[in-house]
Amino acid sequence: MAQMYDRVALIGLGLIASSMFWAMKRGGLAGEVVGFARSAETRETAREIGLCDQVYDTLSEAVEGADLVVLCVPVGVMGAIASEMAGVLKSGATVTDVGSVKADVIAQVGPHLPKGVHFIPAHPLAGTEHSGPKSGFAELFDNRWCLLVPAEGTDPKATAKLRTLWESMGANVEEMDAEHHDLVVAVTSHAPHLIAYTMVGVADDLRRVTDSEVIKYSAGGFRDFTRIAASDPTMWRDVFLSNKDATLEILGRFTEELFALQRAIRQGDGDHLHAYFTRTRAIRRGIIEAGQDTDAPNFGRAVGKK
Amino acid sequence: MAQMYDRVALIGLGLIASSMFWAMKRGGLAGEVVGFARSAETRETAREIGLCDQVYDTLSEAVEGADLVVLCVPVGVMGAIASEMAGVLKSGATVTDVGSVKADVIAQVGPHLPKGVHFIPAHPLAGTEHSGPKSGFAELFDNRWCLLVPAEGTDPKATAKLRTLWESMGANVEEMDAEHHDLVVAVTSHAPHLIAYTMVGVADDLRRVTDSEVIKYSAGGFRDFTRIAASDPTMWRDVFLSNKDATLEILGRFTEELFALQRAIRQGDGDHLHAYFTRTRAIRRGIIEAGQDTDAPNFGRAVGKK
Repeated sequence: MAQMYDRVALIGLGLIASSMFWAMKRGGLAGEVVGFARSAETRETAREIGLCDQVYDTLSEAVEGADLVVLCVPVGVMGAIASEMAGVLKSGATVTDVGSVKADVIAQVGPHLPKGVHFIPAHPLAGTEHSGPKSGFAELFDNRWCLLVPAEGTDPKATAKLRTLWESMGANVEEMDAEHHDLVVAVTSHAPHLIAYTMVGVADDLRRVTDSEVIKYSAGGFRDFTRIAASDPTMWRDVFLSNKDATLEILGRFTEELFALQRAIRQGDGDHLHAYFTRTRAIRRGIIEAGQDTDAPNFGRAVGKK
Repeated sequence: MAQMYDRVALIGLGLIASSMFWAMKRGGLAGEVVGFARSAETRETAREIGLCDQVYDTLSEAVEGADLVVLCVPVGVMGAIASEMAGVLKSGATVTDVGSVKADVIAQVGPHLPKGVHFIPAHPLAGTEHSGPKSGFAELFDNRWCLLVPAEGTDPKATAKLRTLWESMGANVEEMDAEHHDLVVAVTSHAPHLIAYTMVGVADDLRRVTDSEVIKYSAGGFRDFTRIAASDPTMWRDVFLSNKDATLEILGRFTEELFALQRAIRQGDGDHLHAYFTRTRAIRRGIIEAGQDTDAPNFGRAVGKK
């Protein structure tokens, strides 16, 4: 794969940005990949581990001359960053982001960008429970999906180029509108995270079962929830606040179904429970067939580790 | 480890029984391990793969002469099995089980057992989302916990022997009473399973997001839920029906917390969300430090599998 952009600027140097850096290096996809992070500690770490060809102390220096600027910061600060960098954006540059919410990011960022800059919001559906500059790896996007949400009237060439970049980093790419995106991820990501956080919070807060018991006896299912409930708190706070409507809609549906199942338990309606639990197996099979999860028992976790 | 029991009978030949067989063979822990399953197909499969030294077509033949009888059937049929086998139990034998619920199993099974037989209910906190005779493996119990729930007045020697068997199969063992057991597993296993089933059911049932989208875009968190929502429907139906009170109590607490978080989202209370999401990280760290889960990102799943 030939070089696609001469200069890429990664703004924010956490899990996604660092994985993009390693994936771009793996594929030789950019002339240089530079970075900026607000925190001096993050910049220091990035320099130590060779993350980015150049790490700058200011946003302007990183953005200046970049053909592609990727906003990899929590959704809540995208607008402030866009406003701050607007003046130094190169004409003809593409600005994109990797935020988990799209309508809100578009509303925050769009108004700040000058004419002649292409704005193509994006969202790679990939991650781990780890965060920070050291958590990235080149394979994170392999066979994962990246959703592009270009506004009407966006230059198709700029979109095609960004699509090719993501494909070259290993991802499958799909385009959709912001509203549909926000609903899809409310189901596949945001509601599951809130539910996992809630379940872990409940377990942590019981008087009659100690934390030590919860931890020791977690292999019966609970530990699965703790992984996503260990994700970055700032990122997730912003996600819920900025995708409020879709998340609350899905949580409303969830509560409704949960109440129906609770009633079936209370009334001893075994047929209802059995039918429900049989239906949900099919979705798991679909995910495995689509290559989106492993069929190895317990996700292929190492067994019996002391 | 020397042989501990001359003859062990496994009643029901699914994931747990088959894992016990392979773990006992690995350790040379029993003279012979025989089995029985209600389904002719299961017995056939067991014979084909060498699961059990002898597979019998009737319950009586399997139980006859056994020093240890292990009930590995769904919780809902434990009572019927106990009643059917009571007449052939050897005097001095130990009867145990591996059911996920203890008070209900004790109530079902206890009254059928003759004097001179030791009844020591047990529950290994280990499993995978796979079921059936082919799903077992010797390492399933390594560094997992097995909870013993002996009734008052149980012969301490019989309990000590069963404890040593479980430890020799790789498990850590703890004793507790049935009521506390049922609450602990309601938190660490039963409520998480019901919540996962619910979330997967909701995603499967939305009009505005297709199943195909849910499957493709599942790597953002949802796929974690589908694993436990793929567990055996009959087993789980029986678990919820027989641990009704504790499960409903925990689900009540869960709903309360979920409503509080939903309100924080609706009101834009970012501080509440951030504090909550920070607290839940500590539990994850505890689980990893206790060797009950892996620290590898995404559970160490193979990445980028097509």
